Amino acid sequence: MEQSLAHTIALLERTPAALDGLLRGLPDEWIFTNEGGDTWNSFGVVGHLIFGEQTDWMPRVKMILQFAGTRAFEPFDRAGHVRQSEGKSLDQLLDEFARLRAANLAELRALNLGPKELALPGRHPGLGSVTLAQLLAAWVGHDLTHLHQVSRILAHQYREAAGPWSAYMGVMQCGGHSS
Amino acid sequence: MEQSLAHTIALLERTPAALDGLLRGLPDEWIFTNEGGDTWNSFGVVGHLIFGEQTDWMPRVKMILQFAGTRAFEPFDRAGHVRQSEGKSLDQLLDEFARLRAANLAELRALNLGPKELALPGRHPGLGSVTLAQLLAAWVGHDLTHLHQVSRILAHQYREAAGPWSAYMGVMQCGGHSS
Repeated sequence: MEQSLAHTIALLERTPAALDGLLRGLPDEWIFTNEGGDTWNSFGVVGHLIFGEQTDWMPRVKMILQFAGTRAFEPFDRAGHVRQSEGKSLDQLLDEFARLRAANLAELRALNLGPKELALPGRHPGLGSVTLAQLLAAWVGHDLTHLHQVSRILAHQYREAAGPWSAYMGVMQCGGHSS
Repeated sequence: MEQSLAHTIALLERTPAALDGLLRGLPDEWIFTNEGGDTWNSFGVVGHLIFGEQTDWMPRVKMILQFAGTRAFEPFDRAGHVRQSEGKSLDQLLDEFARLRAANLAELRALNLGPKELALPGRHPGLGSVTLAQLLAAWVGHDLTHLHQVSRILAHQYREAAGPWSAYMGVMQCGGHSS
């Protein structure tokens, strides 16, 4: 499939509804249970997505437009969401994610990015040279990585319960593939 | 997390909304593109979930209640949805899945299953002896396997586009783990 700004926005604008449909109102046992050890639970994933809306994607888009590759992005704090999620409910987080995402996509649309802007370079502190088009595709991939993760976290809870079926369920064999 | 009928139903009743939120209105390029070869696209996944509502999960629940382990389940046809999805739109499939799922869960609730029923045995044509509780947990795991799959199919489309980020996105490294 060809990347396009329209395709990118179409996916990005649906992620809040997908997570809302899956998670809102689920019993706390589903939401606050993880895959063991210091892995994330679904509550943490939504908090992390909020933090990305605030500090990662659109700030980097704007850095590319302003500085092209002459200044590196701020490193993203993967634990940055923990403190700001404290004391909130999942419903609050889902509302906040939807609100921030809608605002960010309104801002993205208003930039009217064309081929020239999409080809502009940025400098990632770890990955090196990237383009604005790659940044937008990574935003989509990041959403889907976390939807993939949430489905895996939830399935993990029924790994024993599903008995002999577990061996045939892809999601129950998935280790996540993340470093 | 402990398995319970309430937890099981809470998850099962949210899957249609999750898929609806993610897929309804997405451009056809997202919906009808697969992971290459004869892999499924997202349209096919929703069709398969519908077929499961019609021929797999509740029919097997009822077989266990009626015959315990004395009769094997009908084998499930993994390609059975293809013909009946032909000519339909994704919106129609999403509506149909939501309607069938709601009806099946109403029927499941009305059975008022207790510990005695949940421990009843069934006979799976491939897996051998299972319990009603395991069948219900597998229903959940099956939903999540396909949500996991849809997130992976979608992410696959931007694997090239995301450039150096792709190597760090779990969903883009996932091969699916299914046989």
